[in-house]
Amino acid sequence: MATTTPISPLAPAGFPELPAVDGVEFASGEAAVKYEGRKDVCLITLATGSSVAGTFTKSATRSANVLDCQRKLGGASDAGAAFFINSGNSNAFTGRAGEGSVKAISEAIANATGLPEDRIFTSSTGVIGERLPHEKITAKVADLAGSLDADGIEGAAQAIMTTDTFAKGATATVEIDGKPVKIAGIAKGSGMIAPDMATMLVYVFTDAKVSQPLLQEILSDLTDVTFNCITVDSDTSTSDTLLLGATGASGAEVTSKDGAFSDALKSVMLELAHLVVKDGEGATKFVEIQVTGAANDADAKTHGLAIANSPLVKTAVAGEDANWGRVVMAIGKSGAAADRDLLSIRFGDIVVAEKGWVAESYAEEQGAAYMKQDHLEIGVDLGLGDGKSTVWTCDLTHGYISINADYRS
Amino acid sequence: MATTTPISPLAPAGFPELPAVDGVEFASGEAAVKYEGRKDVCLITLATGSSVAGTFTKSATRSANVLDCQRKLGGASDAGAAFFINSGNSNAFTGRAGEGSVKAISEAIANATGLPEDRIFTSSTGVIGERLPHEKITAKVADLAGSLDADGIEGAAQAIMTTDTFAKGATATVEIDGKPVKIAGIAKGSGMIAPDMATMLVYVFTDAKVSQPLLQEILSDLTDVTFNCITVDSDTSTSDTLLLGATGASGAEVTSKDGAFSDALKSVMLELAHLVVKDGEGATKFVEIQVTGAANDADAKTHGLAIANSPLVKTAVAGEDANWGRVVMAIGKSGAAADRDLLSIRFGDIVVAEKGWVAESYAEEQGAAYMKQDHLEIGVDLGLGDGKSTVWTCDLTHGYISINADYRS
Repeated sequence: MATTTPISPLAPAGFPELPAVDGVEFASGEAAVKYEGRKDVCLITLATGSSVAGTFTKSATRSANVLDCQRKLGGASDAGAAFFINSGNSNAFTGRAGEGSVKAISEAIANATGLPEDRIFTSSTGVIGERLPHEKITAKVADLAGSLDADGIEGAAQAIMTTDTFAKGATATVEIDGKPVKIAGIAKGSGMIAPDMATMLVYVFTDAKVSQPLLQEILSDLTDVTFNCITVDSDTSTSDTLLLGATGASGAEVTSKDGAFSDALKSVMLELAHLVVKDGEGATKFVEIQVTGAANDADAKTHGLAIANSPLVKTAVAGEDANWGRVVMAIGKSGAAADRDLLSIRFGDIVVAEKGWVAESYAEEQGAAYMKQDHLEIGVDLGLGDGKSTVWTCDLTHGYISINADYRS
Repeated sequence: MATTTPISPLAPAGFPELPAVDGVEFASGEAAVKYEGRKDVCLITLATGSSVAGTFTKSATRSANVLDCQRKLGGASDAGAAFFINSGNSNAFTGRAGEGSVKAISEAIANATGLPEDRIFTSSTGVIGERLPHEKITAKVADLAGSLDADGIEGAAQAIMTTDTFAKGATATVEIDGKPVKIAGIAKGSGMIAPDMATMLVYVFTDAKVSQPLLQEILSDLTDVTFNCITVDSDTSTSDTLLLGATGASGAEVTSKDGAFSDALKSVMLELAHLVVKDGEGATKFVEIQVTGAANDADAKTHGLAIANSPLVKTAVAGEDANWGRVVMAIGKSGAAADRDLLSIRFGDIVVAEKGWVAESYAEEQGAAYMKQDHLEIGVDLGLGDGKSTVWTCDLTHGYISINADYRS
């Protein structure tokens, strides 16, 4: 599958230079979980004293790994921690056997690293409903533990890919109390591994010192305005996982959820979220939807996601059609408050509709010319209040159908 | 647009024989609202004493016609009524001008028929955001009123089409108190008229005698289990309208919402709903999703629609892939109660997953063979309670993308 899909036209020029984050080491390798000849496992260790926070899929049918991570979060941080990820098999909908696989992998990593088992956080992504061949993985754990490297993050970004068309990374640095603090993250998502659903996995590291409760609070707040504001096709994986590790090795302590650290972390999370959208299946356009003037922020997000998830809006974008009528339709169906006669809509800076009708100043040629760009903004003002939200999506193209319908495993 | 789309492979052999319903007359004609050389207007009159009930889109940005119909419903029925429909322009998001167009058309029909203006129910379907050229329509009203015909229902079914690939009709007869009662209905939907959203319009007629409040109660209940259980792409039109007229001309009175009349009406509504799905844009498969064992009926419908609206499920069906993993995913994301380890899933009679894992008896070849049919059943049992619901949808194919993205108006 992965090998047949060309690199997304929205991909950046290459993988970014990511700094080593003090206290974090990476190892990646080949375990042939499903495919031969590609990296499909990675081990990431975090030094003693690291805090770990996480956010996860809300799916009622989430995978054994997700349930295990949720159980382990919030534990004592003095022992350090490890993240382990395999691609090729999601260990989802594998019944009780799936829990056994998580246990077996966690034990193997605990043995190889000396970390307590309840500090081993695992993720799996790939085919669902097939037993995870965890023996292939546990056989490689000692090798991985022996090859940990502070500069190994790019290899980890490659190992977690499924049908992603490019590896995804982002970084930021920020000064706290005169000390430089690094943040670096990797993500995978919106590629598919046949025959199953896309899974988004994200791992972010920092050498800031942050207590676990504060780290979790920051992460949860920022997830709501970054990863929870992107959508490719409205479908939710059973395995979505975002883990954030803070080693404290910089000596700089974060004591408030508002400030330079959160701003920098948000920039990294947002960049990774945008990269996931830019690798959306079949995507040829990146679309930012800015909703303002809603009754409240929640309504704004509801409207934004209704627009972003509408197949008719997404196919119009694919067809480079400035079809504001479909935007009106999506607002109307979202369930959040709207008044036709107060609504205004713009594409980029071009006002296309206002006061319940097409704008007098608008000419179809303007919209048609604007839609040829590969980064688009759709602005909606409800005219009702101060609620606002920004969400990001991609278009819906023949490529999406081809990836998900034409090729079978 | 309409002319370039081949007839749906799921279309029936032809338009059915529909009986004349006493007290109902039809006229259709060409007003060139948008396109020349095709029927695009129809007038339907209902005799004195007819009750009219309706259900409508819940869109917050619904059209001027829908708002007007909602205002007029429930009025005195002794004067008879008329339905008027035009295709080519939906009169949606046309601001105050849209209200003026509805008023102008209603007045013209009142003048031509002698009916009070508040008994004229109008619908418009087609391009949105463009002023309805209602002068073209009002100029034709006298002709229409002069050519009313009890046998004209097929012409009406043709006039309301936009990019529908076939005209849709259904009928049933039922005996009440020894008297034969006829029910006949027409529908349009799931075709698009570029550059706008699909609209579903449905008109059903009967010569039963039913009080307006009871007719409305029956219609609302049956809409929930028929038209509100179908989905093509999860998008909701600003114009969806279902009107039901009961002339009473048979002399047979319906006095209870349960009974033979409701059963027969349900069969007509369900058949029309299925025809709309079978004309879904790009559809090649008709899919019935049967959810049982949910905590309650509402949860069952939530799960059913989550499966029916999932792009990943719909592309799998298009690819003839018995991808039960995507069904699990859709159940997980729906928000309604589910327990992975109690879930079972079948495709037709083939049990593919049970107790949180692939069924031991299941072989991929069975599923692959089943998926080649063009009428499919996906069964889901949640194992939680007695809640159940059945919903209907179609697959998501390259045809959908082509209709909505490739061709521009």
